[in-house]
Amino acid sequence: MAKIGINAAFLDEGLKARINAATSAYGHEVVYFENDEEALQGSDGCEILFGNFKPEAITADKALKWLHCSFAGVDKFTSDDIYANPDVIVTNSAGGYGVTIAEHMICVALMMMRRMPEYMAQTAKHGWGIIGEIDSIMRSTITIVGMGDIGTNFARRAKAMGASCIRGVRRTKKPGDAAYDEVYTIDQLDEAIQGADIVALCVPGTDATTHLIDAHRLSLMKDGAYLINVGRGWAVDQPALIQALESGKLRGAALDVVVPEPLPVDDALWNAPNVLITPHVSGNMTLDVTRDLVVDMFCENIAHYSKGEPLRNLVDRKAGY
Amino acid sequence: MAKIGINAAFLDEGLKARINAATSAYGHEVVYFENDEEALQGSDGCEILFGNFKPEAITADKALKWLHCSFAGVDKFTSDDIYANPDVIVTNSAGGYGVTIAEHMICVALMMMRRMPEYMAQTAKHGWGIIGEIDSIMRSTITIVGMGDIGTNFARRAKAMGASCIRGVRRTKKPGDAAYDEVYTIDQLDEAIQGADIVALCVPGTDATTHLIDAHRLSLMKDGAYLINVGRGWAVDQPALIQALESGKLRGAALDVVVPEPLPVDDALWNAPNVLITPHVSGNMTLDVTRDLVVDMFCENIAHYSKGEPLRNLVDRKAGY
Repeated sequence: MAKIGINAAFLDEGLKARINAATSAYGHEVVYFENDEEALQGSDGCEILFGNFKPEAITADKALKWLHCSFAGVDKFTSDDIYANPDVIVTNSAGGYGVTIAEHMICVALMMMRRMPEYMAQTAKHGWGIIGEIDSIMRSTITIVGMGDIGTNFARRAKAMGASCIRGVRRTKKPGDAAYDEVYTIDQLDEAIQGADIVALCVPGTDATTHLIDAHRLSLMKDGAYLINVGRGWAVDQPALIQALESGKLRGAALDVVVPEPLPVDDALWNAPNVLITPHVSGNMTLDVTRDLVVDMFCENIAHYSKGEPLRNLVDRKAGY
Repeated sequence: MAKIGINAAFLDEGLKARINAATSAYGHEVVYFENDEEALQGSDGCEILFGNFKPEAITADKALKWLHCSFAGVDKFTSDDIYANPDVIVTNSAGGYGVTIAEHMICVALMMMRRMPEYMAQTAKHGWGIIGEIDSIMRSTITIVGMGDIGTNFARRAKAMGASCIRGVRRTKKPGDAAYDEVYTIDQLDEAIQGADIVALCVPGTDATTHLIDAHRLSLMKDGAYLINVGRGWAVDQPALIQALESGKLRGAALDVVVPEPLPVDDALWNAPNVLITPHVSGNMTLDVTRDLVVDMFCENIAHYSKGEPLRNLVDRKAGY
């Protein structure tokens, strides 16, 4: 019997009912916080926290044993410093965002390849006419850096749309999903990005991913290639990217993550040619599929926790994900 | 040995080489027209024409026996009136556009569902923030009117992205591709569109498709549904659609075809809320995949024609496609 605090801004009554059923089955008590202020005030004394908490809202929580983040990128939650009890178990919701982020990636890939921003600019002026050559996912070569849930959901969709070669890049050499035609390790990244029509970054935010795409790697990319980033902004050297877009080396870049966020109003990135910026929304809680999956994972873990079983989606706080 | 006239604006040297090989194998003579003016002047005396000709460019051609259109929608080429010889055989390039139009349909479906036009408007002002709830192809019900190459390519991609139910609607009762979960005939259209998250029109331009989607059918659609039209503009009652968008009945409409084309600068459709207009470009020749497929089809038909075999993609000029 534990006290569970849940930052519940994304939960409707149906989802709360599912959580109540899953937790009351083991006699737990649930408190819902409707906003960050309530979470800050109310989290103290909870053995379990679930949701999207600000790190400062949990640092004083001595009773906390298990933090289940409702998101996947836990880079702000790996340090011992933010926990009163350094043995806190952290789990994340990796697996809940693959669908929505993969749909975002297919969307922006096609928007860039089919020159939709140019068509929309023409439409805004009530103009009419063919703008020019377009590209397709069909027959394309796509390099996906990060072969987790997100990368793999994207790989499967791109493969189903006729991509001729899907290359996956991961930290260690092990086989991937059947959608990947080739698997590279991260030290083979130079080779993996050469000749690719699309390079897609789905990597967590760790030191190892800082400036993974820098000026040199941009120069190795195929002329007219596209870059997609849905991982962390600092995986890309932004000034180098702006140059690659200005020179025409890259035909487009779709960035859902940037440095810093929010991007300042006067940042040079806004005005780079063929950049498609979204405000870190590819994987937020605005899709019902995502909310369902995230609540499913928490309910599954509540059962494991209550029975003393290993938790799913355990974060390796040293590795950073 | 026939004289073949080809309106070649879309052909590069590689494609011309393939055509030259396929035609010289049977001793045919090929003349390339680089623009509509050359086509108008030069088509007379040709037994075979291939390309995108204006109807007025071929009406005087007494030698013409076979017209192979480089596009799929032949509504302007079905009447006997445009031919000096009413027995002219007409073939089209249905099958060449499924890939590019299906990629367009996936693109605009996701753009509407993920509210990309709103995000792009925010980005244009260097703004940052979550706009609100989004939808997904995953778990959606999609009704596809027209189960030919285009509809089926879209069906397969939507199914691969996790759509829970794909309904196909066709003229006659016969089974469709495995991607369709349910098949309806066109007289069951009322039933087929009810409850669908997306209704996609991929129908040829015939009398039977005029105002297929009218005020009554719009009222039958699910609240918050999306409409996609890549067939012919007159399949939709445009004033009724504008009302359905203004009332919020529909959450969005992506129209690659409208009435008339080009859409006049002062047409009310431009200002309808959540309309995503493209200038009839979903299936044009701007994609290499399309050009390859269209040339392949012509070369295959040249072999059939030369050997006196039935042609592929024969147009039933009475049916209109």
